[in-house]
Amino acid sequence: MNLSKYLEDAVNQVASLPGVGRRTALRYVLDLVKRDREEIERFVSAISNLKEKLTHCQVCHNISDAAICHICSNPQRDKSIICVVEDMRDILAIESTHQYRGLYHVLGGKISPMDGIGPSDLNIGTLIPRLAEAELKEIILALSPTMEGDTTAYFLYKKLGSAPDIKLTTLSRGVSVGDELQYADELTLGRSIVQRLLYEKAIEG
Amino acid sequence: MNLSKYLEDAVNQVASLPGVGRRTALRYVLDLVKRDREEIERFVSAISNLKEKLTHCQVCHNISDAAICHICSNPQRDKSIICVVEDMRDILAIESTHQYRGLYHVLGGKISPMDGIGPSDLNIGTLIPRLAEAELKEIILALSPTMEGDTTAYFLYKKLGSAPDIKLTTLSRGVSVGDELQYADELTLGRSIVQRLLYEKAIEG
Repeated sequence: MNLSKYLEDAVNQVASLPGVGRRTALRYVLDLVKRDREEIERFVSAISNLKEKLTHCQVCHNISDAAICHICSNPQRDKSIICVVEDMRDILAIESTHQYRGLYHVLGGKISPMDGIGPSDLNIGTLIPRLAEAELKEIILALSPTMEGDTTAYFLYKKLGSAPDIKLTTLSRGVSVGDELQYADELTLGRSIVQRLLYEKAIEG
Repeated sequence: MNLSKYLEDAVNQVASLPGVGRRTALRYVLDLVKRDREEIERFVSAISNLKEKLTHCQVCHNISDAAICHICSNPQRDKSIICVVEDMRDILAIESTHQYRGLYHVLGGKISPMDGIGPSDLNIGTLIPRLAEAELKEIILALSPTMEGDTTAYFLYKKLGSAPDIKLTTLSRGVSVGDELQYADELTLGRSIVQRLLYEKAIEG
């Protein structure tokens, strides 16, 4: 493309966002060009604030406005359960179910030797001291049902399994709500038969 | 979503881009959060520069770094033809064909009574004086083959048609290169029969 220098710069920057090609970036940039100065200032300061104002919660590593995030500092949350997740997006997904009122711990990734990510690259060191908290009764390993997720969960199971009186659980796997059985993949369907539930239990949820 | 205030602000701003929903915006924002301060500064200044540094060419209304854009000020361009387009994206599309070496004029939209856009909202006033330029021989009305595009082209034809010795042309319409005839729409196929070309002429292009 034969663009003016400043347009080119902006397109290159916007095209660095995940999944954004140059054509889409140009569309975004031309939309920004049309806006007035105040709107651009609001846009730009919102992005700058991400670096200036945001931090990570010292306890759970969730993205936070303060040293302790709004979940860890909320007295209404159930301090007897910690749900271990890969990423803060998983927190948002779980929160939007309204089925969980406990705390979280964000690992910041999963063990992936292919990408050179080992246990020491994850927020595991800060998880261990949390096991000592008096109220803690359960840790949910809520990792993705993928090879890397399973590896990470197994690593944590070995690392945390020795803690007495703390139950280690994981998310149930099975056919998705609303799915037609005939279209469920074999692995999932197989697991959902092996790990079948008492009907009374299942309808409680 | 239950986000920190600064994250929420950034997501809202990014979600204001065309075709970006909140989930996609969050993905972009979380990618930005991971970057270091310098990268964010480069990103932000590229966006700010759109308003600080970019202007519109005084002659053709293309987006430009200077008062006269790099096409209008290029002595290599053919000053005998002006191609009238809706938007600067059309310039990029035409430039990427490498088939046109003339000048442009960006209308900044098309006549669309449904959206309350009339001729006075477009850059037509500045097109009229350009007709007086000695070298000018042809104006190409390169508007989209839509209802609004056709209306705009007809308006310009009426407005500019009286200029002596200036040829008014429009883009040819016909079946797309590489299309199977059986899948071409009737209107396009019909036009391409009515406006059929001498075979010798057609293979020249």
